Amino acid sequence: MREDSLPVLVAGTTHPSLGRDVAARLGVPLCPVRFTRFSNENLKVVIEGAVRDRDVFVLQTSCPPVNESLMETLILLDALRTAGAGRVTAVLPYFPYSRSDKLDEPGVSITARLVADLLVSAGAGRILTLDLHAPQIHGFFRVPMDHITAIPTLCASLATEASAPRVVVATDIGEAKDAGRFAARLGVPLAVIDKRRTDDSEHAVPHTLVGDVAGRHALIVDDEIATGGTILEAAEMVLRMGAASVEAAVVHPVLSGNVMQRLRASPLRRLRVTNTIPLRPECVDDRIEVVDIAPLIADSIGRIHKGERLDDVASRR
Amino acid sequence: MREDSLPVLVAGTTHPSLGRDVAARLGVPLCPVRFTRFSNENLKVVIEGAVRDRDVFVLQTSCPPVNESLMETLILLDALRTAGAGRVTAVLPYFPYSRSDKLDEPGVSITARLVADLLVSAGAGRILTLDLHAPQIHGFFRVPMDHITAIPTLCASLATEASAPRVVVATDIGEAKDAGRFAARLGVPLAVIDKRRTDDSEHAVPHTLVGDVAGRHALIVDDEIATGGTILEAAEMVLRMGAASVEAAVVHPVLSGNVMQRLRASPLRRLRVTNTIPLRPECVDDRIEVVDIAPLIADSIGRIHKGERLDDVASRR
Amino acid sequence: MREDSLPVLVAGTTHPSLGRDVAARLGVPLCPVRFTRFSNENLKVVIEGAVRDRDVFVLQTSCPPVNESLMETLILLDALRTAGAGRVTAVLPYFPYSRSDKLDEPGVSITARLVADLLVSAGAGRILTLDLHAPQIHGFFRVPMDHITAIPTLCASLATEASAPRVVVATDIGEAKDAGRFAARLGVPLAVIDKRRTDDSEHAVPHTLVGDVAGRHALIVDDEIATGGTILEAAEMVLRMGAASVEAAVVHPVLSGNVMQRLRASPLRRLRVTNTIPLRPECVDDRIEVVDIAPLIADSIGRIHKGERLDDVASRR
Amino acid sequence: MREDSLPVLVAGTTHPSLGRDVAARLGVPLCPVRFTRFSNENLKVVIEGAVRDRDVFVLQTSCPPVNESLMETLILLDALRTAGAGRVTAVLPYFPYSRSDKLDEPGVSITARLVADLLVSAGAGRILTLDLHAPQIHGFFRVPMDHITAIPTLCASLATEASAPRVVVATDIGEAKDAGRFAARLGVPLAVIDKRRTDDSEHAVPHTLVGDVAGRHALIVDDEIATGGTILEAAEMVLRMGAASVEAAVVHPVLSGNVMQRLRASPLRRLRVTNTIPLRPECVDDRIEVVDIAPLIADSIGRIHKGERLDDVASRR
Amino acid sequence: MREDSLPVLVAGTTHPSLGRDVAARLGVPLCPVRFTRFSNENLKVVIEGAVRDRDVFVLQTSCPPVNESLMETLILLDALRTAGAGRVTAVLPYFPYSRSDKLDEPGVSITARLVADLLVSAGAGRILTLDLHAPQIHGFFRVPMDHITAIPTLCASLATEASAPRVVVATDIGEAKDAGRFAARLGVPLAVIDKRRTDDSEHAVPHTLVGDVAGRHALIVDDEIATGGTILEAAEMVLRMGAASVEAAVVHPVLSGNVMQRLRASPLRRLRVTNTIPLRPECVDDRIEVVDIAPLIADSIGRIHKGERLDDVASRR
Amino acid sequence: MREDSLPVLVAGTTHPSLGRDVAARLGVPLCPVRFTRFSNENLKVVIEGAVRDRDVFVLQTSCPPVNESLMETLILLDALRTAGAGRVTAVLPYFPYSRSDKLDEPGVSITARLVADLLVSAGAGRILTLDLHAPQIHGFFRVPMDHITAIPTLCASLATEASAPRVVVATDIGEAKDAGRFAARLGVPLAVIDKRRTDDSEHAVPHTLVGDVAGRHALIVDDEIATGGTILEAAEMVLRMGAASVEAAVVHPVLSGNVMQRLRASPLRRLRVTNTIPLRPECVDDRIEVVDIAPLIADSIGRIHKGERLDDVASRR
Repeated sequence: MREDSLPVLVAGTTHPSLGRDVAARLGVPLCPVRFTRFSNENLKVVIEGAVRDRDVFVLQTSCPPVNESLMETLILLDALRTAGAGRVTAVLPYFPYSRSDKLDEPGVSITARLVADLLVSAGAGRILTLDLHAPQIHGFFRVPMDHITAIPTLCASLATEASAPRVVVATDIGEAKDAGRFAARLGVPLAVIDKRRTDDSEHAVPHTLVGDVAGRHALIVDDEIATGGTILEAAEMVLRMGAASVEAAVVHPVLSGNVMQRLRASPLRRLRVTNTIPLRPECVDDRIEVVDIAPLIADSIGRIHKGERLDDVASRR
Repeated sequence: MREDSLPVLVAGTTHPSLGRDVAARLGVPLCPVRFTRFSNENLKVVIEGAVRDRDVFVLQTSCPPVNESLMETLILLDALRTAGAGRVTAVLPYFPYSRSDKLDEPGVSITARLVADLLVSAGAGRILTLDLHAPQIHGFFRVPMDHITAIPTLCASLATEASAPRVVVATDIGEAKDAGRFAARLGVPLAVIDKRRTDDSEHAVPHTLVGDVAGRHALIVDDEIATGGTILEAAEMVLRMGAASVEAAVVHPVLSGNVMQRLRASPLRRLRVTNTIPLRPECVDDRIEVVDIAPLIADSIGRIHKGERLDDVASRR
Repeated sequence: MREDSLPVLVAGTTHPSLGRDVAARLGVPLCPVRFTRFSNENLKVVIEGAVRDRDVFVLQTSCPPVNESLMETLILLDALRTAGAGRVTAVLPYFPYSRSDKLDEPGVSITARLVADLLVSAGAGRILTLDLHAPQIHGFFRVPMDHITAIPTLCASLATEASAPRVVVATDIGEAKDAGRFAARLGVPLAVIDKRRTDDSEHAVPHTLVGDVAGRHALIVDDEIATGGTILEAAEMVLRMGAASVEAAVVHPVLSGNVMQRLRASPLRRLRVTNTIPLRPECVDDRIEVVDIAPLIADSIGRIHKGERLDDVASRR
Repeated sequence: MREDSLPVLVAGTTHPSLGRDVAARLGVPLCPVRFTRFSNENLKVVIEGAVRDRDVFVLQTSCPPVNESLMETLILLDALRTAGAGRVTAVLPYFPYSRSDKLDEPGVSITARLVADLLVSAGAGRILTLDLHAPQIHGFFRVPMDHITAIPTLCASLATEASAPRVVVATDIGEAKDAGRFAARLGVPLAVIDKRRTDDSEHAVPHTLVGDVAGRHALIVDDEIATGGTILEAAEMVLRMGAASVEAAVVHPVLSGNVMQRLRASPLRRLRVTNTIPLRPECVDDRIEVVDIAPLIADSIGRIHKGERLDDVASRR
Repeated sequence: MREDSLPVLVAGTTHPSLGRDVAARLGVPLCPVRFTRFSNENLKVVIEGAVRDRDVFVLQTSCPPVNESLMETLILLDALRTAGAGRVTAVLPYFPYSRSDKLDEPGVSITARLVADLLVSAGAGRILTLDLHAPQIHGFFRVPMDHITAIPTLCASLATEASAPRVVVATDIGEAKDAGRFAARLGVPLAVIDKRRTDDSEHAVPHTLVGDVAGRHALIVDDEIATGGTILEAAEMVLRMGAASVEAAVVHPVLSGNVMQRLRASPLRRLRVTNTIPLRPECVDDRIEVVDIAPLIADSIGRIHKGERLDDVASRR
Repeated sequence: MREDSLPVLVAGTTHPSLGRDVAARLGVPLCPVRFTRFSNENLKVVIEGAVRDRDVFVLQTSCPPVNESLMETLILLDALRTAGAGRVTAVLPYFPYSRSDKLDEPGVSITARLVADLLVSAGAGRILTLDLHAPQIHGFFRVPMDHITAIPTLCASLATEASAPRVVVATDIGEAKDAGRFAARLGVPLAVIDKRRTDDSEHAVPHTLVGDVAGRHALIVDDEIATGGTILEAAEMVLRMGAASVEAAVVHPVLSGNVMQRLRASPLRRLRVTNTIPLRPECVDDRIEVVDIAPLIADSIGRIHKGERLDDVASRR
């Protein structure tokens, strides 16, 4: 690996603006890559920049079409290995299949583990990712991983606002640990909703709320929002229990299905997300506030390239 | 592996009718599998049948959406490994990315090799496939592979027809070896078109025809037909050179883009294909004749399960 | 692997009675093994039974001396591989280092993952274990694992007792999911204690109790009990909040430090544990009730040997 | 790897003059190596130069005794790994067993793939080779490979000669693609001989010639010449079809059996080869013109050492 | 693996009579294999028998041409893996490069270890070998190895002869342990020659003899005889020290260089060897007595196939 | 790896003084590491220094508790890999389980090989060790190993002393080769004791002494001393055979069991050892002279870091 040289940034096609922003902050051009899709849907990528013996970072998030994006990542990694790149770090702001992290019923694949195997098999020598659903996913890799968190970024300015949250609400007992850290950071108490997914349908019904939200500005916290069912039903319950207002802070804006329609009809004052996943045009909305994680990613890449520790941004989910 | 038991057949979602036919010929039920697609496009498969220590065959072809199909294959393989299947054979009638078999320009991925790595990484212990674009792909695997051919199936009855082909035409010098075998089998001479793809656009212009087609029924041979450009331009040239009529025989009916529109406007008398790939409804057409390879696949699976040789159906492309 | 033959059971030195009981239930003798410890503390094991091409199960739990036990397991596995055993399944009632499953601070080892690697490196081809602290540990293995649960065993008869629990209490938000399943099984409500470990000292202070325990018989649930701090402080808090009585049910009786002294001085009516770990003599006490998991393990080994599914005893922690 | 230091060149015993020339062009001394052959024919090599953490290139071609040469390569690679070399690149001007690249009949080894595995198993971390028989061999490696071509070197000056070739002839349909590129480079038309090997005897009979050679200076092109059967019979046919004269250009001068006797009796005006394989003394002949590839190899090693791209000399066979 | 079927025996070309004898004793035909050597010295093997899912044994010793033999072994193993053999055991009566088992000077390859890696890389799943020079070579393999000994075979009848040996002589201190076992078996004392090889020349000078040989029939013992220097000089010293007569017993008859000439000129009464290596015609001599190990090998293969222990023939060198 | 930076030295807990001394000689601080042992005996290590991309050396010897020490080593290695260390060299002055290097009876583990696998599996990329019991252990590793020797260090000043040894005595035929080198270095003759261990009890009885010790100062040489049985019985025999005095020189002072009591009651004039293993307080005794190997280790680490050869300190046992 040429250590005195600059890092090389390769961006997949999933999140062009993030790629541009991270490159600008790193002070390097994006490595030119030519993407072709044949009529039979086969992808072809051509690395056109100089990568031999260089320290290369492949930036690609997981967003629809999820499997296309993942295959594109794998093909990029393989092309870089073939081209003799020195060390290749897969930078995955939203880790693919991160919710498939255990054998939740017999006969399934632990697909997050499979993804880990595929990434390494294709040539990834290091991983950088944000806010995994479960911190144990770290152990799916034998190559070094930097698992960083956007929670401080997401919290910034929250405490100083006029209508700052006075209680943090976890949407599920399983998520409570993370929400507890959130509450500690903001210096406010925690409340927890007791409910559970019943099957694969992603729909779940809040059951009881433990903790006190009456008269307070409540902040619902979760690591991702997909169809919004979990968070919006939590919001309704929180208001039913007397909260003064309710907003939500979520790292990964998956925003799938008819979430926007439901969001607009909901009492949620604000949904604060990061841009680990790009917002589809139909998701642009006054109530959605996007916090930029390009500085966090660029800073982390820079430190990895220079061999510096990332302890202060490491996640301990 | 339970050797006295029957093979287990797991079918992906790409080619339901082929799965049913192969199962019927093997005399086994299809292994029940539950497929779920979450709102965030993540796939989930649940193997619901008994597979522990069994000899399992996963039948999945490569067809649009190509990358979805491939990821589904990988997740099926991983679920089977996790469930403790004895030996898992990936049965891939049309091998994914089989045309990406070499470094045709600097900076690319040899994606067929990557696919081989991914399949093995996900748990495939053996491969069964048909008519690879290049026989060297066999060497991309260290696990045993049975590479069989549908050419005899495709030829059957051709020679005895009234308008039997009297010359075989290769569409490209690179394809000529295979066409030569075809010609030998039918006992007719060979002609070769000299032309070359110029870039990734898949478009290529026939240049010259070496060999004599005048006054004969010509059979154009290729391993796959995608947009049809290659074959249809060849057909026109063959007729221009005085052939009495022209038809084509192709193993893998990729049939992408506006191939049907072009096919209907072409002078091609008949396109004979196999069903390694299912025909989309809009491709059903009088001129397309589909030869069934379910018997070939079922027979091969049966022999693999019983540990018998497949020499007589092995491809030597 | 000789499939028609009986399974072979090899027992490490950690839990002799469990080995004998499982062997008796399987109807096989324990495979004779000679253990020697040289004056320099090096271990030597000699497999004296016939294991070549056989289906071998190595039963060894994790208990003090923990690292000695683990090394003994690894040496047993290696001796079996060297001796040509057919398939070797490590049966680990209490998985070593299962609480070291994530990067809880920078600079640490995810030791449960390391243990997984060591087991496979030494020759384990399959794993059978009970009630992992986190279900994601399953993904640390690429070899098949059966992760089963003793919770039904532990619950049996509880609901029908006179002083049956009327509320289940989770000792920590992070444990609440599992306790919720427990509550569901017993058909009673759930309460959760909000507290957190602050450092490596293992000491933690219960903060608040969410849920209602007043006037009820409470059952505190956890996956393991070590120094007992967590459970005994929870017991005190539950009584302070007005519970009629309090008992505890825990899968893994680690019972370290001065736990017995604390237990005897505590208001805990009963501690129900399994025998995944053998009780040291000083831990035999009227208040500790041990539920035998030998039938569960023997049954699971028998099914694995015969290639049957274990779905009904699989854990979904 | 010490990046600021010079590359280290280790030469096997197969091609001493090429080793010396490449070293001279790189401006480095050959790394001293002591070769011993015991009376029992076992080889011993001793790396006597400094290689620890250095960028090492092992230059060894494949020539009789072929298997001795290959084992010597493997032992050299292993000795370098044991000695702690930083990165080891195997430089193989003529790749061993490159014609055994597919399953041309059931029951054989794809030996080129086996060779790839052996090289990597022995410690090769990168490969540099010239003009593989099939470009798919590239995919047999997961380590980076630079596959370069001597064709431009071989063509240089040809076009400007008085008796420059006016038609390029491929000896076999399977070789036609490469010959086509050759023809394009020289700006002359292509002719193709239709014949096929019938068995392992290496003998094959030209059948027909497609294309026009009458009255022209013909250049027969192939990637290697062994017994010369293919090329000399082609030469005769080309003259029979009226060519003004015939010569041949071949990358790898295997020159085995009684090729020289046949060559001298043949009408071939000239055989132009490279020195990827050293000419045995009995092969020195006026009609054989050797083009030196030492500059090409030295330049490629230099670029690999410096991390520069080799696109302009990369083969796309 | 088909367990109910017979083992399959594949013989390399190194030792045809041993192959036939072992096959006869096993009661199986030799698996038909076609060996071809192209004019470029490349080997080709074609497995013509049925091996899919079978328990296959490849019998090949190491004898000149040593590297040819080894490559042939590797190609056979690869062909068997490609053909889907169930389990492949490499049966190597004389292990290749077994004297290259340590780093006897900086810069060398531990070639016995490299050979172990190559065998496994090519597809060997188990090893059967006789009388390794050092027992630690066993640890070079992670796959199961049966290391058996021909010493009992070699000793048989010795003790009951009229001129039975009355002292066993080790040719070198490093060989003394093995000779000591030999002496114990025959119930006679041990003497040791103190000398050492000084370099790679294989020549060494006996220095002193420790122990008493005067007036006794002496038996010199070693694991292999190559040029005979070691043993013949030992014989002279033993006679100089007053021995009544001297003979030698050696497992592996490498017999290289001018050993026969030296042997005939020596005072050695008899050289007893096994047929782990075939004797070249010029080595047939009255003084050389060959003990047949075909029964030992056939018996061992039979037991491995049936999964029985080989403890009684295992070497503990 | 940052090549311009200093090496990083991480010390395990087995030998604190050696760690400090080596660090001082290298001119680097010891990398801060926090060791925690939970009440359940689980170890936790936290690497608190900067190691990312650095050249790290982990210093840990093998001493009681042996298995605890080994697990600590493995956890340290894994923590360093997880933290992204550049290259990690395990520095093991006394290699764990180095006497378990072969299959000395059926059914055992070759534990030194297992240890090699575990070290590499946990992340060791290079090994530095001293005076292995058998040099073949080197071959258990595919990663580079520097096997150095303390014998010159141990010999220094011996020859110039007033009562310099006049004969070197090997305690066992198996150890004689090494003792022979020792004798050559001191320029004195060699004597060898013929005895053998009979079982695992470590007790063995000297049988005969070959060579002459009468009237000489004798130096008994061995690679390690555990219970002392071997050496002390040798001392008694040597004196019985008329030696003027007897002392011993041993690399590794295992000193287990009641060795000190026996040593004090023995006629041994002096026991010279190195500090590859720390002496327990009860082993401090006038008769034990400890030679410091910190300079040797520090020098070797320095050279490895700089990529220099270690030939002059390499062991050729």
